Amino acid sequence: MGRRVNGPGRRTTCQSILCGVSSPAAARRRTAAPSERVRVRRVHEKASYERDAVKAILDEALVAHLGFAHEGQPFVIPTLHARLGEEVYVHGSSASRTLRAVGGALPACLTVTLLDGLVFARSVFEMSANYRSVVVLGEARAVTDADEKLRALQAFSDQVMPGRWEVARRPTRQELKATAVLALPLDEASAKISTGGPDDGKSEDAELPVWAGHLPLRLVAGEPVPCPHLRPGIPVPPELAAYGR
Amino acid sequence: MGRRVNGPGRRTTCQSILCGVSSPAAARRRTAAPSERVRVRRVHEKASYERDAVKAILDEALVAHLGFAHEGQPFVIPTLHARLGEEVYVHGSSASRTLRAVGGALPACLTVTLLDGLVFARSVFEMSANYRSVVVLGEARAVTDADEKLRALQAFSDQVMPGRWEVARRPTRQELKATAVLALPLDEASAKISTGGPDDGKSEDAELPVWAGHLPLRLVAGEPVPCPHLRPGIPVPPELAAYGR
Repeated sequence: MGRRVNGPGRRTTCQSILCGVSSPAAARRRTAAPSERVRVRRVHEKASYERDAVKAILDEALVAHLGFAHEGQPFVIPTLHARLGEEVYVHGSSASRTLRAVGGALPACLTVTLLDGLVFARSVFEMSANYRSVVVLGEARAVTDADEKLRALQAFSDQVMPGRWEVARRPTRQELKATAVLALPLDEASAKISTGGPDDGKSEDAELPVWAGHLPLRLVAGEPVPCPHLRPGIPVPPELAAYGR
Repeated sequence: MGRRVNGPGRRTTCQSILCGVSSPAAARRRTAAPSERVRVRRVHEKASYERDAVKAILDEALVAHLGFAHEGQPFVIPTLHARLGEEVYVHGSSASRTLRAVGGALPACLTVTLLDGLVFARSVFEMSANYRSVVVLGEARAVTDADEKLRALQAFSDQVMPGRWEVARRPTRQELKATAVLALPLDEASAKISTGGPDDGKSEDAELPVWAGHLPLRLVAGEPVPCPHLRPGIPVPPELAAYGR
């Protein structure tokens, strides 16, 4: 199944992957972003607003970080996610105060980051990472329609293991009720992609006797561990055996 | 160097890793959390407020997600981080509007998540992940003292590769000035740890002819890729050769 792909794009000097917030003057200089507030400011050569790039990163990631504010305090919560068409879904317990609080629409930010490597320049200042990330800004909508909820649950299942939905027990009516689902449109989304080695190979630092290069990183799967109560004679699904290899 | 360790704790049923926000009634039932707003609500058996557990997860993670709000819109930005004592640091460009906006103190949330595996129950509803995560709430402080900034930069360097600070070119005064550093105290931090297999091994679902178990995941390093302009005769640092193995 091989979840790792090589992203497009190129690296430029960047010590950090922090970005900034709004500036109308900067907006006039660059208009490709779907909104000013989602425009990538720091090292904007790495930015992409192509919907396909955004989708590919969202589809590969297994974990998202959902941000929202409550009484002035930001919260960032790791969660499973899945994309369906032009929206990304997250889910949680209906008993969750966060999800209950949404009711209508909640300003939210969903971010996924695939860490692809570490970049070692000759200087500490130029040390950086290779990564592919997506930031989605918008208002999270509580999904109430039963059919849409079921489609979203199938998408969560497919995200983790394609084909699982066909064999595992599907949600009961009660389980569906116990699951809250939020949807966030991709209208305000940006991707940031950093690949390759350090940028100081042609600077005066290149004369320093310091190793420079990059170290690829990837998420790999170990051997599947069967539940101790597994009924005998049930083989490991082939999708799982091939996971992340 | 082996970044992966096995976290303590146990799994309980959890379809999602979303958690909620404040409730005074719930607070009366549980008092171990350093503050009500950082208390883990969803599947609280997985929670830990032990400072050592928080530190171990922060120290192992290579990427953090920093959340803050700007004009009512939450932002979640991936960034490198490092812990020093009882604070966690993030850094970025001084030109970043976010970091410049901080000035004094900025309500923020720093979250790190180590994805350790996927859990396949017999039902879609019980599908979940194994992970270790930390959520730190608080006010981010802009670091202005030059010595503290330098210590933080060394910590970033050590976080990515111990020993690198000793061999790489250290930041110049100008580079230090170009780097903004934020500190977030660990006073309001919680960890959440999920390990092991599915919980439905003793439920009626256990009779279903569906494979159940878990799939360990880990981040591994490939072969270091030297910069094409690397001076001849400089070997790969041993710390790098052993990375994540």
